[in-house]
Amino acid sequence: MAQTRPSLYLKQGEERRLRAGHLWVFSNEVDSARSPLKAFEPGQDATLRDHSGRPLGTAYVNPHSLICARLISRDPERGLDESLLVHRLNLALALRERHFPTPHYRLVHGDGDGLSGLVIDRYGDTCVVQPNTAGMDRALDAIISALQRVLAPAHVLVRADSPLRELEGLESTVDWAGGAGPDALEIIENGLTFSVPATTGQKTGWYYDHRANRARIAPYVRGMRVLDVFSYAGAWGLQALAAGAESLVAVDSSSDALDALDANAERNGLGEHVTGVEGDAFDVLKALRQDGERFDAVIVDPPAFVKRKKDLKAGLSGYRRLNQLALQVLEKNGVLISASCSAHVDEQQLLGEVLGAARHVDRSLQLVERGGQAPDHPEHPAIPESRYLKALFTRVAPAWSTP
Amino acid sequence: MAQTRPSLYLKQGEERRLRAGHLWVFSNEVDSARSPLKAFEPGQDATLRDHSGRPLGTAYVNPHSLICARLISRDPERGLDESLLVHRLNLALALRERHFPTPHYRLVHGDGDGLSGLVIDRYGDTCVVQPNTAGMDRALDAIISALQRVLAPAHVLVRADSPLRELEGLESTVDWAGGAGPDALEIIENGLTFSVPATTGQKTGWYYDHRANRARIAPYVRGMRVLDVFSYAGAWGLQALAAGAESLVAVDSSSDALDALDANAERNGLGEHVTGVEGDAFDVLKALRQDGERFDAVIVDPPAFVKRKKDLKAGLSGYRRLNQLALQVLEKNGVLISASCSAHVDEQQLLGEVLGAARHVDRSLQLVERGGQAPDHPEHPAIPESRYLKALFTRVAPAWSTP
Repeated sequence: MAQTRPSLYLKQGEERRLRAGHLWVFSNEVDSARSPLKAFEPGQDATLRDHSGRPLGTAYVNPHSLICARLISRDPERGLDESLLVHRLNLALALRERHFPTPHYRLVHGDGDGLSGLVIDRYGDTCVVQPNTAGMDRALDAIISALQRVLAPAHVLVRADSPLRELEGLESTVDWAGGAGPDALEIIENGLTFSVPATTGQKTGWYYDHRANRARIAPYVRGMRVLDVFSYAGAWGLQALAAGAESLVAVDSSSDALDALDANAERNGLGEHVTGVEGDAFDVLKALRQDGERFDAVIVDPPAFVKRKKDLKAGLSGYRRLNQLALQVLEKNGVLISASCSAHVDEQQLLGEVLGAARHVDRSLQLVERGGQAPDHPEHPAIPESRYLKALFTRVAPAWSTP
Repeated sequence: MAQTRPSLYLKQGEERRLRAGHLWVFSNEVDSARSPLKAFEPGQDATLRDHSGRPLGTAYVNPHSLICARLISRDPERGLDESLLVHRLNLALALRERHFPTPHYRLVHGDGDGLSGLVIDRYGDTCVVQPNTAGMDRALDAIISALQRVLAPAHVLVRADSPLRELEGLESTVDWAGGAGPDALEIIENGLTFSVPATTGQKTGWYYDHRANRARIAPYVRGMRVLDVFSYAGAWGLQALAAGAESLVAVDSSSDALDALDANAERNGLGEHVTGVEGDAFDVLKALRQDGERFDAVIVDPPAFVKRKKDLKAGLSGYRRLNQLALQVLEKNGVLISASCSAHVDEQQLLGEVLGAARHVDRSLQLVERGGQAPDHPEHPAIPESRYLKALFTRVAPAWSTP
């Protein structure tokens, strides 16, 4: 049953990164005289071949994207069909079932699960599918069928509204597949229960990626007055309270997020210790500094400041200013938990900005722990881009480290 | 009460790294015409000054070491005396008491706790002190007095036998301070109880640094046949069994280590599932491969293969061979937990060797989690050398990642 697929040829030598394990092809690596990208429809399957014609496997192609092809299988006979999807979903599920006691996790983490361009988050019996590429858009029916065969979720929400889709020339839509699901998604994380709006929450609804980092916060926040900047629906802040923090001030620019946070606080019996502050994080931090407010622990987990490589300089400066403001509202021996989800910013760069901020405000830091993505966000070890999450757990130290 | 200390002058510009937070001075950075290193006794205090004479703080000096001085205080009036030590020990203790339920941890982690050259591990009411520099040797009485004031341990063992001392031109000794202590040190880690010989165990007796990594192993090993290479007294392997592993094969070259492991297995009611194999790790792995033995999970946590920068190439090749052998005795969907404690090998380098090994034996890997030092091994964020521990939690994946 060999299918005939068109061939996509690489220029000489451009197969090297792929042979070392990577899955992406950039448009300038294609031998476009031999296989013009324009001849492909967005999302179409192709046999990827090196310059000498040897097949590297099956990829899907998007002539409109800088990443113009993504390898989906090393087997040139196997494309992105339901059978391949069922196999990969089962492998992905096996990993999650070993790690998580309840069905609340990222089920598919793109490249890390061998399904470049696809994210699926699971919220109990509801799955949220994020097709982020033309290839995954085109395979959407097969994805949903495969999901039904593997998990049979009661509801499937397709959130085709990631900003990544712009890079693929795709439109933004949000739709239930096969009948409307619930208004809210429920999450159990580290023993707490949360709820977020189903179709209008951030990303797929929840940031599962920080779960392991949040599971560690008890020793950092017990008995402390905690400030949670970019709080969203309360994942960090409420877990800090549940771990024994004395009080929580949660800052978010979205009143919907703060409403969700309030409801989540009530749901977990933590309502009386929470103060929500609506506003821009930088503005609120400045006002708190101005008013002389001080906290024992500050958590800054902002959205990605560096979405594209060219924003690196501005983004790094954003991390520096943010962490500087955080340090300025921190008590003398306080704890700063500083995160970044920008794939273009590596851990050392983030640490550099946090340290730079500390020096600028004459604080010294001790780096107590580093955290990364939870196990439901596995990395593809040959794809550095599949690692994106950093969390630095620091303590303001006496002046042994900086002058 | 200002003391008069001799001055150690740096060459022009060489103060930069120190101003950015680092604590070390290399001998080629000293203006030795102005302040000859030979004029200093090993361990002597000095006022460290930049080229223009501005004080950078108080350092202790060792003319025989490549790292010829280490900053101990940014205050030129404050040297390495009992009062400074009491202050730093209290800060270090406060961090550990927040993180650990029982008094079993690294109390002082050198640079990370502002006490460059000093390690103190706590085993209940016994403390093991490792002075690794001439400065800390010279301050040993003050260290022990300070420890008595802060913790009043029943016993203090001075293990002045780290190989680091060779770099300082120091001799190797092991002695109880103030009366002999017990024959064995007791450790409680992640709910299990261990015992190791007090004066003859590896390092200070226990490797507390991997505690947080070992705390994560349950999902990786539950129900599995586990191979623990370089097992020592069973920290990884027995915690794997306690977490639900089906069986354990522990490999170590030391019969004393395997005796300790057996006793620890009995102590925790895990004895019947353990097989100890005495021998060189590489030889044993080859024999297991030869015999067709296969495991569901392999843990390789070797001693540092790269002790000096010049050993990097040979050491990396050692990591590659070791991980390759580990992968060759691993089942198709098995788990490989691969660690390195070489400060000269960074996480990316270790990952490179593990990946290279996997490619060589035609295996693909998924990187599920990365782990580092436990919180009782804080990093000095301006001293990259204070980060040394890496643990990669990987799963053999189907062939989506490499051909």
